[in-house]
Amino acid sequence: MNKDFQVSPEYAFQLDSQDKLASFRDAFIVTDPDLIYLDGNSLGRLSKVAIERAKQVVEEEWGGGLARSWNKGWWESPARVGEKIAGLVGAAAGQVVVSDSTSVNLFKLTMATLALNPQKTRIVTDTMNFPSDLYILQGCVQLLGNRHEIVRIDSKNDGITPDLDALEKAINEDTALVTLSLVLFKSGYLYDMKQITEMAHRKGALVIWDLSHAAGAVSIALDDCNADFAVGCTYKYLNGGPGSPAYLYVNKSIQEKLSSPIWGWWGQDKPFVFGLDYSPAHGAERFLSGAQPLISMLTMEAALEPLLQAGMDSLRAKSILMTDYAIFLTENLLVPFGFSLGSPRDSAQRGSHISIRHPEGYRINRALIDEMNVIPDFREPDNLRLGFTPLYLSFTEIWEGFDRIRRVMEEKRYEKYSAQRLTVT
Amino acid sequence: MNKDFQVSPEYAFQLDSQDKLASFRDAFIVTDPDLIYLDGNSLGRLSKVAIERAKQVVEEEWGGGLARSWNKGWWESPARVGEKIAGLVGAAAGQVVVSDSTSVNLFKLTMATLALNPQKTRIVTDTMNFPSDLYILQGCVQLLGNRHEIVRIDSKNDGITPDLDALEKAINEDTALVTLSLVLFKSGYLYDMKQITEMAHRKGALVIWDLSHAAGAVSIALDDCNADFAVGCTYKYLNGGPGSPAYLYVNKSIQEKLSSPIWGWWGQDKPFVFGLDYSPAHGAERFLSGAQPLISMLTMEAALEPLLQAGMDSLRAKSILMTDYAIFLTENLLVPFGFSLGSPRDSAQRGSHISIRHPEGYRINRALIDEMNVIPDFREPDNLRLGFTPLYLSFTEIWEGFDRIRRVMEEKRYEKYSAQRLTVT
Repeated sequence: MNKDFQVSPEYAFQLDSQDKLASFRDAFIVTDPDLIYLDGNSLGRLSKVAIERAKQVVEEEWGGGLARSWNKGWWESPARVGEKIAGLVGAAAGQVVVSDSTSVNLFKLTMATLALNPQKTRIVTDTMNFPSDLYILQGCVQLLGNRHEIVRIDSKNDGITPDLDALEKAINEDTALVTLSLVLFKSGYLYDMKQITEMAHRKGALVIWDLSHAAGAVSIALDDCNADFAVGCTYKYLNGGPGSPAYLYVNKSIQEKLSSPIWGWWGQDKPFVFGLDYSPAHGAERFLSGAQPLISMLTMEAALEPLLQAGMDSLRAKSILMTDYAIFLTENLLVPFGFSLGSPRDSAQRGSHISIRHPEGYRINRALIDEMNVIPDFREPDNLRLGFTPLYLSFTEIWEGFDRIRRVMEEKRYEKYSAQRLTVT
Repeated sequence: MNKDFQVSPEYAFQLDSQDKLASFRDAFIVTDPDLIYLDGNSLGRLSKVAIERAKQVVEEEWGGGLARSWNKGWWESPARVGEKIAGLVGAAAGQVVVSDSTSVNLFKLTMATLALNPQKTRIVTDTMNFPSDLYILQGCVQLLGNRHEIVRIDSKNDGITPDLDALEKAINEDTALVTLSLVLFKSGYLYDMKQITEMAHRKGALVIWDLSHAAGAVSIALDDCNADFAVGCTYKYLNGGPGSPAYLYVNKSIQEKLSSPIWGWWGQDKPFVFGLDYSPAHGAERFLSGAQPLISMLTMEAALEPLLQAGMDSLRAKSILMTDYAIFLTENLLVPFGFSLGSPRDSAQRGSHISIRHPEGYRINRALIDEMNVIPDFREPDNLRLGFTPLYLSFTEIWEGFDRIRRVMEEKRYEKYSAQRLTVT
């Protein structure tokens, strides 16, 4: 942690003046400069290249090109866009494709993994994982006749970090699959991918990493970690747009052993021969299913460009500085009002968001959105979650955001809001 | 068949002047008025409302509203857009949702159906179905341990119409599922939904209809036919845009008995409680999976408006007139060059496209696209497929399209093209 942080807007300004990524902010649309957007970990901002590309896909490629555009880049897009994402998550060519949603991809890879080792009946995950990922696992177990057991390890007493000893004990010779979110959606804890992958491999288990809260924010080295599988969404730090299609990674060494449970024509070997019997495509493409939403996919493809230009090392360095700074401000401005940190202090164990916990977190979140023009998000039971997107967020905005939270507390503005849960996100 | 058709451009013009839907053409973007687009059955044209909506979703809802837009219509969109499609396929409220691709939806409904009657092991379909649908069925059978048998009935000798006697014989007491495309993608044959559904129900089998080539072009009455399930894409006659998300229909009477194999958080009962255990939503929404591509989905939603305004009865009436006229022109202009009709003559058995067959079909298709500014599409081995979209195609365009095909034949323009297959669509 930087020891020189200071509690002043001038200091934030100084951090901005030293920020080598500051100019990337201009690549984004900011319609309301007063808005402090701390939810880029949920839905990334709209970039200028994304606007332009969406317009081009709709007007030129669909409107003008019509069905001819299938032969001019549409058909290949799941693999092409996959290669761009591969460059952000440390994967060599031929292992990442874009397809469907994270849930559907997790379903496909879980089913493929369990089919590979039908005699192994244990699946290991944690209670801090996305509930959506746990649901998919539960559905797979049901589908396979309830022969499998899902073991969920818990957090340590801090509620922030997973109990790695318990994790190591849970992974045994009967374990087919370990699946975890690389960055936990609530606390922002960042697993050590290499360590956990090796831990699983020692027992003969395969690992599926959910990169949704990690890609575009932390350094990821899938190949170097000898990872087996990964899935992830593209609408958080990858700024792909609402619900933009997800991706999956399958390590080259195991691709040909695996079969998708969904035998889709986009994953067929020769789809335009229109043969009546399925034969899987080679490589990760066998995990493609049906037609993909091209406007959403190609808009997302364009949105990757600023990230690729900035480079993950620079993004990660700025992200760490931002979350360190945010923790400093939490301690200096918000702890006096009853907040506590719900995220790791060690930046090596932290993604690009932090949770700050307060018993009135829900009402504080409502006050921030409704009258302070700050957008964090709230996660039960008491987490105000603050996302710091290194590509377009400034330190001045972080300062201003914390100062507005402080004002909400000082002026008790949250008291007029009901604690009745209303929002859907 | 109208007996008064005449072989002249003036007659086509006369048909246009009597066309009550003619003004809907103005609702679409036509960048190249010389282009004869006969592939709207593959990718529908871009409408003006779709352009506007895409722009609004990107710039206002994503760019301006950011994550707040989830609470302003995004989250509910799969159900809301489903209701609009329901209005085009004869379904009362609460039975249609938009989600994923047709392939993934067919997978979900097939798995749910087979789980409902595990003792029944027969699946009946036909060899003229989309190969993509057959692949999904094959994958389901493999996933369930190859306990099921897929029986594919063939066409009659004409290669155009299915052998309904064979179909009836194939459906026995052991049949769990009958699944067919309502309109066959090659010949355009239109099944009688009520007849086949009753045929299956008499033996205790359930039916999944693939409406991809039918919705927006033929009259469909899912509820009146007592249909069990349907799936379909939205990028053909529904003009939703390339790869726009698909939909599924589940009859209200069986919804609560069924479980999706993919336990997705969008199909969860209370997703924002973030509970660790899955509990399915009520109704068709339990078949939702993960996040949907909002730009593609909301653009598609807007594209439905002109169809809803025109009304399916008017669209179907014009569609029949168009395909009757196209068959008349085939007989008068193209049969002399060796073409034969690959589609039913009886309009009651026909969707909104026809296939015209010629041994040189592949090369003729290439000549039409490359030098005649006509876009049909080609389906192996010899089908030149011509789609007639009642919402925006004019009779003059149909005339002009056939006249250009005639010129390709008369001038033997196809001879300079290789018969080597190149295109991907």
